[in-house]
Amino acid sequence: MGNADVPAVTEFARRVPVPPVRPFLDTFRANLKETFFPDDPLRQFRHQPARRKLVLGIKYFFPIFDWAPTYTFSFFKSDLIAGITIASLAIPQGISYAKLANLPPILGLYSSFVPPLVYAMMGSSRDLAVGTVAVSSLLIGSMLSNEISPTEEPSLYLHVAFTATFFAGLFQAALGFLRLGFIVDFLSHATIVGFMAGAATVVCLQQLKGIFGLDRFTSATDVVSVMKSVFSQVHLSKRKPRFFWVSAAAPLTSVILATLLVYVTHAENHGVQVIGHLKKGLNPPSVTSLTFTSPYLTVALKTGIVTGIIALAEGIAVGRSFAMFKNYHIDGNKEMIAFGTMNIVGSLTSCYLTTGPFSRSAVNYNAGCKTAMSNVVMSAAVMVTLLLLTPLFHYTPLVVLSAIIMGAMLGLIDYEAAIHLWRVDKVDFCVCLGAYLGVVFGSVEIGLVIAVAISLLRVLLFIARPRTTVLGHIPNSMAYRRVDQYPMAQSVPGVLILCIDAPINFTNASYLRERISRWIDEEMESSEGKTSLQYLILDLGAVGGIDTSGIGMLEEVKKVIDRLGIKLVLANPGSEVMKKLDSSKVLETIGHEWIFLTIADAVAACDFMLHTCRPDEVSSCENSV
Amino acid sequence: MGNADVPAVTEFARRVPVPPVRPFLDTFRANLKETFFPDDPLRQFRHQPARRKLVLGIKYFFPIFDWAPTYTFSFFKSDLIAGITIASLAIPQGISYAKLANLPPILGLYSSFVPPLVYAMMGSSRDLAVGTVAVSSLLIGSMLSNEISPTEEPSLYLHVAFTATFFAGLFQAALGFLRLGFIVDFLSHATIVGFMAGAATVVCLQQLKGIFGLDRFTSATDVVSVMKSVFSQVHLSKRKPRFFWVSAAAPLTSVILATLLVYVTHAENHGVQVIGHLKKGLNPPSVTSLTFTSPYLTVALKTGIVTGIIALAEGIAVGRSFAMFKNYHIDGNKEMIAFGTMNIVGSLTSCYLTTGPFSRSAVNYNAGCKTAMSNVVMSAAVMVTLLLLTPLFHYTPLVVLSAIIMGAMLGLIDYEAAIHLWRVDKVDFCVCLGAYLGVVFGSVEIGLVIAVAISLLRVLLFIARPRTTVLGHIPNSMAYRRVDQYPMAQSVPGVLILCIDAPINFTNASYLRERISRWIDEEMESSEGKTSLQYLILDLGAVGGIDTSGIGMLEEVKKVIDRLGIKLVLANPGSEVMKKLDSSKVLETIGHEWIFLTIADAVAACDFMLHTCRPDEVSSCENSV
Repeated sequence: MGNADVPAVTEFARRVPVPPVRPFLDTFRANLKETFFPDDPLRQFRHQPARRKLVLGIKYFFPIFDWAPTYTFSFFKSDLIAGITIASLAIPQGISYAKLANLPPILGLYSSFVPPLVYAMMGSSRDLAVGTVAVSSLLIGSMLSNEISPTEEPSLYLHVAFTATFFAGLFQAALGFLRLGFIVDFLSHATIVGFMAGAATVVCLQQLKGIFGLDRFTSATDVVSVMKSVFSQVHLSKRKPRFFWVSAAAPLTSVILATLLVYVTHAENHGVQVIGHLKKGLNPPSVTSLTFTSPYLTVALKTGIVTGIIALAEGIAVGRSFAMFKNYHIDGNKEMIAFGTMNIVGSLTSCYLTTGPFSRSAVNYNAGCKTAMSNVVMSAAVMVTLLLLTPLFHYTPLVVLSAIIMGAMLGLIDYEAAIHLWRVDKVDFCVCLGAYLGVVFGSVEIGLVIAVAISLLRVLLFIARPRTTVLGHIPNSMAYRRVDQYPMAQSVPGVLILCIDAPINFTNASYLRERISRWIDEEMESSEGKTSLQYLILDLGAVGGIDTSGIGMLEEVKKVIDRLGIKLVLANPGSEVMKKLDSSKVLETIGHEWIFLTIADAVAACDFMLHTCRPDEVSSCENSV
Repeated sequence: MGNADVPAVTEFARRVPVPPVRPFLDTFRANLKETFFPDDPLRQFRHQPARRKLVLGIKYFFPIFDWAPTYTFSFFKSDLIAGITIASLAIPQGISYAKLANLPPILGLYSSFVPPLVYAMMGSSRDLAVGTVAVSSLLIGSMLSNEISPTEEPSLYLHVAFTATFFAGLFQAALGFLRLGFIVDFLSHATIVGFMAGAATVVCLQQLKGIFGLDRFTSATDVVSVMKSVFSQVHLSKRKPRFFWVSAAAPLTSVILATLLVYVTHAENHGVQVIGHLKKGLNPPSVTSLTFTSPYLTVALKTGIVTGIIALAEGIAVGRSFAMFKNYHIDGNKEMIAFGTMNIVGSLTSCYLTTGPFSRSAVNYNAGCKTAMSNVVMSAAVMVTLLLLTPLFHYTPLVVLSAIIMGAMLGLIDYEAAIHLWRVDKVDFCVCLGAYLGVVFGSVEIGLVIAVAISLLRVLLFIARPRTTVLGHIPNSMAYRRVDQYPMAQSVPGVLILCIDAPINFTNASYLRERISRWIDEEMESSEGKTSLQYLILDLGAVGGIDTSGIGMLEEVKKVIDRLGIKLVLANPGSEVMKKLDSSKVLETIGHEWIFLTIADAVAACDFMLHTCRPDEVSSCENSV
């Protein structure tokens, strides 16, 4: 007799097909591709002759061969201007940031010479201005100084710094080659905002100490002037890009003015510290300086990995955002390889960690750069400086460098972003705050760990505690929606429609089982007198995946509600879920005819059963399906 | 002119409301409740007089006051039989497992006396048989023996074991009180299967060494006999519950037979090791034995936490599954408090870690137990044994204990479950295999870490790499479904419908941005000649939540496709998403009139725009919306 009823039910049902069984290796390969090669980087290589493939391969790793042939003079003019502009920014900032890392000032110039050339060949961003950045410099400074005193054993400190840079580069390149770029994504925007602000605060406090530790009389004036210019440029450049040249020019002018002032007044004899002698000449090789002997190996490795990932996060983010403005594509993993190579080469030529600083790249962009050539121009300018102009920095007072650092730092405290976070997403704000407080009161590592921990905990909690909501029918439509979201949604008598909005797996299986049974209890309590609960429809439209624990949960729910005389009905399961239901034989226990394409179909079928079976037979009638 | 068109578009649109802004604390409290109190344990306390609340409170923490008043004699008869049955199992197994933990055999009996009494008062499962379990015993044995030699400093070893048990109890109770029960869920079924099998393998290898290290002649016979009975009982009890009494009786009979055999043949003088003297009398207090001094504090703490969570995982799972059979509810967090108290009290009365072993609980269930009273009966039987019968165990050969252990262990190697895992879910199988190999070739901790790491990585990868699929129209229906799942689904010319099946957050924002732009590129390439792509409809029905990074992603996608002259349309966003879209002002940039209740509505609106606007005006016509 059962079979007689089946068509009656199934006529409502547009079938939900069980996906054909594919060989394990195929699905595995497909998933691997989707996971690690979503952008399908090798698409262009297909169906090409070997020689063409080689050319494409070279162009893939060295984009310069892609754009150089079509490079025009008009492009060069723009790049020339942009390059000189960022050079005027890179030289003073480079010297200042080197000081932040407790490294000799000259390293700042070295690091603005070689790495930009490497990036110009390998990088795919047209707007990135390569150089050292304040936060990474601070990180290196603080992490290395814990182990080695930069004042007592400066040469050892220097060598370990090179080694750390080498490891950072190696780590970055490895991430790119292994297509693990997404690891960088785990540093969320909120984390970066809080982290940067925290680092900036720490640096500013350090520098202020430095500034006010000076003989007020001789230096007060130019501190004030510099601070003024600094503040103005930071804000101007943030508000009105038109005034970018102010922020571009300010540091160099301050340096020149301050240097002249000191030179004329001979303030260096009255307690104003100056940079002093800077050695002429280009980067000396530093291959032999790399130290791979414990105990310094571990600290170099740790510093390298932490600073490497921070630098990547900044560089990639900057590259992506400018690529978006100009609407060209950037392959994150390829960029990482470029950054990695840049730092490995750098570590062999007396440079320390470099990346793409936001402020300088913004200037580069506003100065109208067209290609990575602007980096070449910059490094040429730095070369000239290294060969000829280093003596001029002799009288540059350290205080002006502090001011420049603070200027850059104040730009990093993005309180507006924090306010935005608070307004939009409280948890993200907590992440940001955690990173900030962690950095300020703990250390940079602690700040990072706190922020990442909160972020991941949030993701895990979302999975472990998915929302289950009751759906109701939206009048004059086929749609069923959350009753808590749509007040007009009407519940269907005798039927409870639940929606699960996350994958079902071991973290939430038992939670869902308990939550669902509580929904049923409440429904049965509330439905006194009305049509008693006969059907539970689970909307699996939002269930992206399911594992064995999840399958077991469905099986148990079915057992439990069967005992209550309630029928389990599934609506709109994805192919993943159908596959698992089938392979685990749960499909048979539920009954394929009780799985529907849409909630509307499911409800129609339930209504049919409710009204064609007389109340006293309902159960037998159901069993017959 | 724009306003003129808006109604034309919006007439298709049943509005998606922006949820009313609720005070932060309300939402926070609501989320907290859903997350930590899904079962709403205090429901029954509401609107009750203070005195009633007190009574309910006592009943809540001591369920015995709930069932004791209605306890009948017929119940007692069943519980009596069940209790004696599990006692006959608990006594030999207790002695054997104590040996597994390198603890004096008598502790096995102590641990079957006090904890069952505590559980009988506080536990809410009616079928759980409390006692020591092989795996936890093994864990304690291996983890403690790494630090302290049980042979050289037995008393210190004993004291640290008590301390570990104390910490385990404390940890378990804390988890319960803090409603962190879900942490136990992170040990997935797959993990447990692999872990148990691994532990069983290790133990069996140990025991075999013990067995064949004996004088073959005297002991071969009873080894064989015992092994036979052991094998038979394990399999029988697994296949036919009717024969549960075999598995119940086998160990005790083996012990009695073997003991008699040794006693008669005086085999103890011919190299058969026997238990030897067991001290008469009940548990001595062990409060003073707890050692909180380093270096033993750390090892005790570590052992306590690891064994505590393993024991919980087994106990809770067993309790839940039997509760499901008999269709009564168990509050996981409450159970944890019961287990915790049980172990704390135990650690003060010379017991080591106890929980609810599956095998013994199954026997208890099959013996027809009605309430936790069966535990009281068991502990009474153990008490009698402790007071009177301990001398009888003097001649019990250790080899029979090994056999009993192996019997229990072989039951733990659930190869069928492993096969099922492979068939249903390859990743879960890897988790299981990882746990197994980790335990066998590494250590129990390593096995656990591997398994949990794989499981979590899988969850994170699912979030970090959500599936984006193209949807098509299912003929003669309002439904739009995945084209890869439903071959009959038809794409709509000029419109690309994408479905995102996971929450959008910092882990997947940049991935989704790149993946979506690739979908668009491919669509534009393929749609040569046909209607060019005009609309991108994102189906957010499966997007359970979104954070600031996700919002940023949507904003950027909009910017990018605007530049391509493609319009972004959203369908069926949840209230979470709408709230965030609104508070981040992205709602205005997208335009509320471009957010639809269903995909069908969205497509209708797009069609309307495509056909009412002449091709050459489409863009202006769109901008006017």
